[in-house]
Amino acid sequence: MTHDLKIPTKSEMANRTGAPWPLPPGATIAILGGGQLGRMLALAAARLGLRCKVFADRDDAPAFDVASGTRGSFDDLTALHTFAAGADVLTYEFENVPVAAAEALGAKVPLAPSARCLEVAQDRLVEKTFIREAGLDVAPFARVDSSDDIEAAMRDWSAPAILKTRRFGYDGKGQSRLASAQEAAAAWDAIGQAPAILEKQITFACEVSVILVRDRSGHSVSYAVPRNTHSDGILRRSTVPSGLPADVEADAATIARTIADALDYVGVLAVELFDLGHGHPPDMPRLLVNEIAPRVHNSGHWTMDACGCDQFENHIRAIAGWPLGPTTRFADATMDNLIGPDALSWPELSLELGARLHMYGKAEIRPGRKMGHVNRIHRLLAKAE
Amino acid sequence: MTHDLKIPTKSEMANRTGAPWPLPPGATIAILGGGQLGRMLALAAARLGLRCKVFADRDDAPAFDVASGTRGSFDDLTALHTFAAGADVLTYEFENVPVAAAEALGAKVPLAPSARCLEVAQDRLVEKTFIREAGLDVAPFARVDSSDDIEAAMRDWSAPAILKTRRFGYDGKGQSRLASAQEAAAAWDAIGQAPAILEKQITFACEVSVILVRDRSGHSVSYAVPRNTHSDGILRRSTVPSGLPADVEADAATIARTIADALDYVGVLAVELFDLGHGHPPDMPRLLVNEIAPRVHNSGHWTMDACGCDQFENHIRAIAGWPLGPTTRFADATMDNLIGPDALSWPELSLELGARLHMYGKAEIRPGRKMGHVNRIHRLLAKAE
Repeated sequence: MTHDLKIPTKSEMANRTGAPWPLPPGATIAILGGGQLGRMLALAAARLGLRCKVFADRDDAPAFDVASGTRGSFDDLTALHTFAAGADVLTYEFENVPVAAAEALGAKVPLAPSARCLEVAQDRLVEKTFIREAGLDVAPFARVDSSDDIEAAMRDWSAPAILKTRRFGYDGKGQSRLASAQEAAAAWDAIGQAPAILEKQITFACEVSVILVRDRSGHSVSYAVPRNTHSDGILRRSTVPSGLPADVEADAATIARTIADALDYVGVLAVELFDLGHGHPPDMPRLLVNEIAPRVHNSGHWTMDACGCDQFENHIRAIAGWPLGPTTRFADATMDNLIGPDALSWPELSLELGARLHMYGKAEIRPGRKMGHVNRIHRLLAKAE
Repeated sequence: MTHDLKIPTKSEMANRTGAPWPLPPGATIAILGGGQLGRMLALAAARLGLRCKVFADRDDAPAFDVASGTRGSFDDLTALHTFAAGADVLTYEFENVPVAAAEALGAKVPLAPSARCLEVAQDRLVEKTFIREAGLDVAPFARVDSSDDIEAAMRDWSAPAILKTRRFGYDGKGQSRLASAQEAAAAWDAIGQAPAILEKQITFACEVSVILVRDRSGHSVSYAVPRNTHSDGILRRSTVPSGLPADVEADAATIARTIADALDYVGVLAVELFDLGHGHPPDMPRLLVNEIAPRVHNSGHWTMDACGCDQFENHIRAIAGWPLGPTTRFADATMDNLIGPDALSWPELSLELGARLHMYGKAEIRPGRKMGHVNRIHRLLAKAE
């Protein structure tokens, strides 16, 4: 055998099998967004021999260190088309990609998850309505277009509530808490009088999430459910096992699958839930959906060091039409975000046995900025077979 | 805290501590060589927030997909100096970097492993002499500068032998086997009459290797010893556990440490050994050193999926002055190389539970070309604590 061979390209594979999937090694994945999620997606793709290119709106995007980068504005459709041209599949790593742009690009290059998933996740009112219409439970909420809407809802509920802008909120930004209807005008001003949603404040025992991955044929699997703790609206720690009873974890996974199926989702989907605990009110179920993220998720970072196939590789596998990898957990784990000056503790963390350090390549420390994370792995006790 | 902070740079760290190590996240590692080993080193560095740039002599170097790439000739010292300028540490991923170039670059940028390690590993005669002078055992060998040298040695040994060029041999290239002294002239011609070494052929039970990592303070640790099988001079499979008695594995690790200490080595070192088995001749020890590689090594690829910290991250940690990560093995593993058309089996391998696929981003399949590898992981039986 002296003649050259090549791994068949996507079009050669499609000619043979009649389908463009799975994408062969050497195919190109285009990622909208260049933050740490894009960076870790690109690293996972590289292990499988898949190439990534990344579009971001700043020069120092973390993903640019490990993939071919294009800087541009997400409002510049021409630049986006130039970027996506020739890619075999297109995905996104943040949910604020303009829906119209995603739709236009998706008409030319297969997009996963779909633009519809962005549309649902971008607007808290659309999101909650969608979830409720899928037959799932959420905390009581109301549409807010004026201070009067806030007052009306709060009188109905007679309970504290939280006002959130419908769009572009993350990590606790664009939110205001209200103890009573008297604070309506102040809260409305605090969020800049933007279209909003008011959510009744729920007393919950803990927050958990489901990281689910769904493939192109509709098959889905999820990881163990982490328990998540936040402060200042930012995720600080995820822990597995969550401590929840197995049947409650199974219910959480079913909720996530229901959402994924309703969206005909392809890729990794995160569903954040409130667990109201064993003693939840009789008129409420134990689990309420808080929000969804149509992407790999911070509360799934522990999978990098505690599972056979982590959330990043499984997202790549799903969108590339590959079979999903095993989500089985082989260790107990805690994931701690390194936020702002936490990053200065890297020398101590680099010393700690069982601590797996992941840094995002960000030079500048800012309050609230996610600089990296550390997974602490407690392997399930092994014995010789 | 509203003012900006940065992770201290290398020079800021040095001003504080008086030493340039450890390199902080954001520092730059320059890698000479852009093959799959450079690619996997760059992926490991990225996880720690360290940047890589890669110098390779072709445009389609696998490492260029995941790091900043420079194409040039290893004989072009000006290009090499331009490449290395500004890097915080310099390393190499193949042993045929010209020693003079490594020395010149090492005078400007810290180089690890040292140019001396290259010098020893590049020339099989220097290598075997060095190992013997370190008090370790190798198969009988003779310097060959003529067909007469071959005949003389073979008459002494009265056994089959293998003739190898002193330099630039890898994966079985530049080698010729001889059954007797009568074949001396033919073998001498077969290797192009290049300066060579003749090694007495040894009957061994199996081949094993030690993957050791040594830090800047001289502390070293090694991974479990894999058993390696070759065909056509190319590594096909590495398996842990090796099946060797624990004391023999400990002896192998001690041999590797002796070599690393003698070279004042920094980084990952691979030492390939022949195990002559339980019934080894009384005049020979059970373990003989075959050769060393001053770099991460194919027989260590299983560590990527079966150890707390793999050989690539540990090489990066060592050269960056970080503490070494745990080399503990938490699974049984076999690593199979995907050589030439083996790469076409990627769809089946992507389906296989417990198989971790690693592809190198090489499009063109050539006989003998390493296209990827697959780690099959058999986790040690876990029970709840």
